[in-house]
Amino acid sequence: MREARLTIAFDADDTLWHNENLFEEHHRKYCQLLAEYHDAETVESTLFRTEMRNLELYGYGVKSFTLSSIETAIKLTDGAIPAEELRRIIDFGKDMLAHPVELIEGAAEAVEALSRQHELILITKGDLRDQERKIAKSGLAPYFKHIEVVSNKNNEDYARLFRQHLIDPQSLVMVGNSLKSDILPILELGGTGVHIPYHLTWEHERVEAAPKHHSKFHEIASIKQLQDLIASL
Amino acid sequence: MREARLTIAFDADDTLWHNENLFEEHHRKYCQLLAEYHDAETVESTLFRTEMRNLELYGYGVKSFTLSSIETAIKLTDGAIPAEELRRIIDFGKDMLAHPVELIEGAAEAVEALSRQHELILITKGDLRDQERKIAKSGLAPYFKHIEVVSNKNNEDYARLFRQHLIDPQSLVMVGNSLKSDILPILELGGTGVHIPYHLTWEHERVEAAPKHHSKFHEIASIKQLQDLIASL
Repeated sequence: MREARLTIAFDADDTLWHNENLFEEHHRKYCQLLAEYHDAETVESTLFRTEMRNLELYGYGVKSFTLSSIETAIKLTDGAIPAEELRRIIDFGKDMLAHPVELIEGAAEAVEALSRQHELILITKGDLRDQERKIAKSGLAPYFKHIEVVSNKNNEDYARLFRQHLIDPQSLVMVGNSLKSDILPILELGGTGVHIPYHLTWEHERVEAAPKHHSKFHEIASIKQLQDLIASL
Repeated sequence: MREARLTIAFDADDTLWHNENLFEEHHRKYCQLLAEYHDAETVESTLFRTEMRNLELYGYGVKSFTLSSIETAIKLTDGAIPAEELRRIIDFGKDMLAHPVELIEGAAEAVEALSRQHELILITKGDLRDQERKIAKSGLAPYFKHIEVVSNKNNEDYARLFRQHLIDPQSLVMVGNSLKSDILPILELGGTGVHIPYHLTWEHERVEAAPKHHSKFHEIASIKQLQDLIASL
């Protein structure tokens, strides 16, 4: 169906622009800040548990991460951490929010080229304000017919979105770096999943293995290969 | 046009359910926490300035408010506040997020009755996860054709939303408690605004005066009067 018009949905963070590297940088500075109290492994695992416990209440995003980082630092130091160091954690978070958007190599070209033949939508998870800012900074917004910021990406969330936009999942291709959030739910709904791994994956997004034998699952190493793959579908 | 089908858009916080009272309660506890350092007036005005400075970066909502509250407490105590007291501020925020939704008297009845003749949409500003949770807890979701959580409510935000849903602002009625966010932009776009004041208004949402002489502006004291007003339009 080389000539057919498809709906191609893109994830944003770590698919179109770098994101997880900012969190990695925060983690590094955070472990340094708490180094006199605990080793990095204890800090990381306690922070992760705090984040998971708060996920239902806070949702995803930098503000949630900052609040969980402060809570963890207080807990790990039995309240001994000086307020000024907690202030530095707030500043780490602000730096992340104010950070420029760094597009992944080839992302702008792929989106622009594919938008000429297909209908593109952007489906991104996280904090509304932060995602909107990143979308605006990316310069890619004009190529997308719909831009959806969602609080979660499970089967029901996608199904609701597709109903709302009258999209048949069978003719939808979703492109993303997270097997758990971008690929597996789409395959279950009957769509096509194109996985482009990012070199970093947040522990929460990790799954056991890629569904390599699923007929509608594809994996490419770089978004630069996306046009060719789409043309071959 | 008593028989006509209108599109009626509702604000949510302090229009359908109580919200500002939770913030007031947080302010009270927060001023108490900092009472040994500063009087309530200084605490309030410094917190408000911090919130306004962070608004562009953080957006609206409880998580933003909590982060600004922590930042302000550190600043107002020159870093002398013990971490455990900052932990209490985090807990205040969690309490707000976990709080049950308390519908405003008459809101459920008004929404249910109006949904039988008109198309209802919900347009609410704030944190995505928190707003979705409140909408779910409210039990009112089934009455709305569209539910939109937006990061801001100015003329352009509304115009984009109406274009997206093919809504003619001329035939739209917006119901809300904030003149600044719910009423003035709608009047400017040619729609009808129904103002239902709430007994508390956040300083940021205050405007000088209601546009009392605008032909499409209406003010009622309670949502219980909404059905009669809509019928009279």
